[in-house]
Amino acid sequence: MITLYHCENARSFRALWALEEIGLDYALKMLPFPPRFLARDYLEINPLGTIPYFIDGETRMTESAAICAYLAERYGSAELKVGPDDPAYGTYLNGLFFGEATLTFPQTIVLRYSRLEPEERRLPQAAQDYARWFLARLRAVDAIVTRQDYYCAGRFTMADISVGYALLFANALGLDGDFSDALQAYWKRLSTRPAFLAAILAQEKAGAEQGSGAPALMLRD
Amino acid sequence: MITLYHCENARSFRALWALEEIGLDYALKMLPFPPRFLARDYLEINPLGTIPYFIDGETRMTESAAICAYLAERYGSAELKVGPDDPAYGTYLNGLFFGEATLTFPQTIVLRYSRLEPEERRLPQAAQDYARWFLARLRAVDAIVTRQDYYCAGRFTMADISVGYALLFANALGLDGDFSDALQAYWKRLSTRPAFLAAILAQEKAGAEQGSGAPALMLRD
Repeated sequence: MITLYHCENARSFRALWALEEIGLDYALKMLPFPPRFLARDYLEINPLGTIPYFIDGETRMTESAAICAYLAERYGSAELKVGPDDPAYGTYLNGLFFGEATLTFPQTIVLRYSRLEPEERRLPQAAQDYARWFLARLRAVDAIVTRQDYYCAGRFTMADISVGYALLFANALGLDGDFSDALQAYWKRLSTRPAFLAAILAQEKAGAEQGSGAPALMLRD
Repeated sequence: MITLYHCENARSFRALWALEEIGLDYALKMLPFPPRFLARDYLEINPLGTIPYFIDGETRMTESAAICAYLAERYGSAELKVGPDDPAYGTYLNGLFFGEATLTFPQTIVLRYSRLEPEERRLPQAAQDYARWFLARLRAVDAIVTRQDYYCAGRFTMADISVGYALLFANALGLDGDFSDALQAYWKRLSTRPAFLAAILAQEKAGAEQGSGAPALMLRD
């Protein structure tokens, strides 16, 4: 049985979405955000205190985009991954990393210094610097989705989950006001997928049952 | 022919190191750091202005750890990668992402706000916050290399290149003063590999020939 530790709308959402795309059974453990301060017991499970924490037999993982790649290889249909012999293989791998390292991390800095830190520790300059940094890097995605529906290979893959989560984050931070029409259409294409909606419902249901408190991020309409 | 755009000791070093581990031919194009300000022509090649930029036939990539994974699959011996059927597969993928997203990005914030920005825009608090953040996450690597020589699978893999570059970065930033004995031994094990040393020499030689200026980061002994 696969177990996923998750905070509502936090980057562990990628793994949840991937599980729903494949249609796997899983146990979803909801945590308040940030868990290393609000759920101290969790440190006994994941000493880093970060989410996601993913368990599959002997396998333990903490990187959300890596979990998507793992699930696609281990359990996915050929549709969700791109194989090494495919001309799009390099772009697929690049998208998996780009969504997390280049598009998500800068937004965590914006979140931290504009909302999470107590007033006296907020740093508007850092928040602004990395909002701009994110939007500049996002142009690479804009260029792709201006000419095609998905990140690579002419179809929806785990690379779209990795990048798509960064768009969810941008929505919650209000950075999507600067999205081009093509990016808005891409975000809509992703966020109306049945598996995306199932993942949203699954976290709401588990959160209500487990009393895990306010979401890490609030999605806007 | 593979072409790699690179700044000395910047994260594109991962791709260079991987090329040397495999023993592939490549053209190395050195750029001053940061290229998007000091080499404006480069924007015509990579509109993001970031390094690495990696070209292999029709493939174009910008994420250093993704390039390592790509090279291992496309050109590497079985030794440098971990296959989906291996019990260490999840840990391998996790290490590839962890080295970049979790261990390298925070250090770029330290670099930016303690060294790169002009005095009046420096943010000692952000530099300190993310130095601490990096060292806290590094404990996960410490726990691994306390009990084994390499990140996973009982041998050197691309996951060690991804994490190893973060240790190089820490060396240049002076964050390695807090390394445990196990981490110091791991860093020495990686940084004395023939391919690591060949990559260091290759960038120095190409940098001298191409006049690309001061390195992105200065390594300390």
